[in-house]
Amino acid sequence: MSLGSSDSSTGPHEWSSTEVRVRYAETDQMGLVYYANYLVWFEVGRAEYCRQRGLVYRDFERDAQTYLAVAEVQCRYHTPARYDDVLIIRTRVESFRKRLISFQYEIVKKESENLIAEGKTLHVVLNKNGRPTTFPAEYTHYFVDSRASQG
Amino acid sequence: MSLGSSDSSTGPHEWSSTEVRVRYAETDQMGLVYYANYLVWFEVGRAEYCRQRGLVYRDFERDAQTYLAVAEVQCRYHTPARYDDVLIIRTRVESFRKRLISFQYEIVKKESENLIAEGKTLHVVLNKNGRPTTFPAEYTHYFVDSRASQG
Amino acid sequence: MSLGSSDSSTGPHEWSSTEVRVRYAETDQMGLVYYANYLVWFEVGRAEYCRQRGLVYRDFERDAQTYLAVAEVQCRYHTPARYDDVLIIRTRVESFRKRLISFQYEIVKKESENLIAEGKTLHVVLNKNGRPTTFPAEYTHYFVDSRASQG
Amino acid sequence: MSLGSSDSSTGPHEWSSTEVRVRYAETDQMGLVYYANYLVWFEVGRAEYCRQRGLVYRDFERDAQTYLAVAEVQCRYHTPARYDDVLIIRTRVESFRKRLISFQYEIVKKESENLIAEGKTLHVVLNKNGRPTTFPAEYTHYFVDSRASQG
Repeated sequence: MSLGSSDSSTGPHEWSSTEVRVRYAETDQMGLVYYANYLVWFEVGRAEYCRQRGLVYRDFERDAQTYLAVAEVQCRYHTPARYDDVLIIRTRVESFRKRLISFQYEIVKKESENLIAEGKTLHVVLNKNGRPTTFPAEYTHYFVDSRASQG
Repeated sequence: MSLGSSDSSTGPHEWSSTEVRVRYAETDQMGLVYYANYLVWFEVGRAEYCRQRGLVYRDFERDAQTYLAVAEVQCRYHTPARYDDVLIIRTRVESFRKRLISFQYEIVKKESENLIAEGKTLHVVLNKNGRPTTFPAEYTHYFVDSRASQG
Repeated sequence: MSLGSSDSSTGPHEWSSTEVRVRYAETDQMGLVYYANYLVWFEVGRAEYCRQRGLVYRDFERDAQTYLAVAEVQCRYHTPARYDDVLIIRTRVESFRKRLISFQYEIVKKESENLIAEGKTLHVVLNKNGRPTTFPAEYTHYFVDSRASQG
Repeated sequence: MSLGSSDSSTGPHEWSSTEVRVRYAETDQMGLVYYANYLVWFEVGRAEYCRQRGLVYRDFERDAQTYLAVAEVQCRYHTPARYDDVLIIRTRVESFRKRLISFQYEIVKKESENLIAEGKTLHVVLNKNGRPTTFPAEYTHYFVDSRASQG
């Protein structure tokens, strides 16, 4: 399984943080957040990770005609999240290669700092026809840490 | 408000029926179905209405490069739907005009025949650039009742 | 239809505002936001309306054992919202009665101030057994405008 | 990680099958199914697995006051699913222990028999207070294969 791989060319990188507040829509009749919604928060985390490094993912898709499709996801649920909780989504690139990018996530409850969930996603780079391609070179610097590249 | 209009060229038409079973994901912490999910069932109802009349909506979008975008929705919630309930979605075209199509829905609990919800959607016809257009003539017969057209 | 009613004891009230950013999960293959997701944003608007007036809706449900169940919703879609748009959700109580509360919403694109959608929800007051009840008197002041009550 | 564990008391068991048709709501602007929705289909698969073995999961929660909370999920995405595709969800219990149950899933496109995705979920048994407990003995036979128990 590629998610555990550590032979990346660069990474792991620095964490970014963003917040979400749990919506009523995201709960289920168990009174907790339904488990699929954590993957939506991972997506929010990825977008904010990119934004905090200067890349608007929406513009990347439009300008580069390139897509990061999810090939694999893994999530461990620790403490349940509940309606109206404010959660901090911590995100970083775990490994960045030409054809495969993996992100790592930690979701923490803001008030208690309890770990809610952690996970990983593995992404393949696709062109506008849905074919695997390599990550466009002119965008690579957004994903390569200055710290890491000095190493 | 266009939803109440009755000056349509054709309609109302015959009802179609299809079934869904309530998913855990569709409930919320009140123990009932979250209110936005009824609109997803309306969408299922529209697709099955078309299919039962011979039109696969997916193929329509692809072949005609035409889209039915929702301009307005209205839903009244009568009896709550709950997890694992089997629901019957009844759908019909309420009015069909060149630029505006309205659908009408009734959602009934299969076991008890209780009315769960009822609603309407109003759709505008868009071309692939998102501009208003007229409904393609070669697809009109799917939406015009033989019964109605004899009237 | 109750949504248009104006014989409320109090209201309409002042608007509250909150922001959301459109998630990838909220788009559909038309490249726009799927129409049911606007109802989720209405829910976010309601919760923030309450919070800005001092009432945490989560605590209200827990402490008063009272629920505001949606009896009716109406939404008009004006300009499509797209991925990564920042939207302002404006919310106010349109009318507040003992057994029925209606909220009104306007969703505006932050960047352009274009009106994206507008809508209303009508809520009935339920006790913990799901039976209609009256709104608990000790919480009424959160919904009655000082301005309105002077009228 | 428990998902890979094979020291279960019973299992793996026989597969059950059920079908879903992809909804427009489940697509995103990439034109494919949004990745979190596969977890909803896993949930559908679990419910139908139980039903086909004689256990209505809704009744189990109500009667046993016991909940199977997801502790971990893993999903690999092979071929994208698209709007209106009919998918077969194959589900089985991978391992069944007193406090931990793991399910395994394969999602196949009905028309082509292409593998769309595969995954696993690990569940902990919770009582009505959200505390870990053991699986109620009187329901165990639903999860123990006659074939397996003869082994």
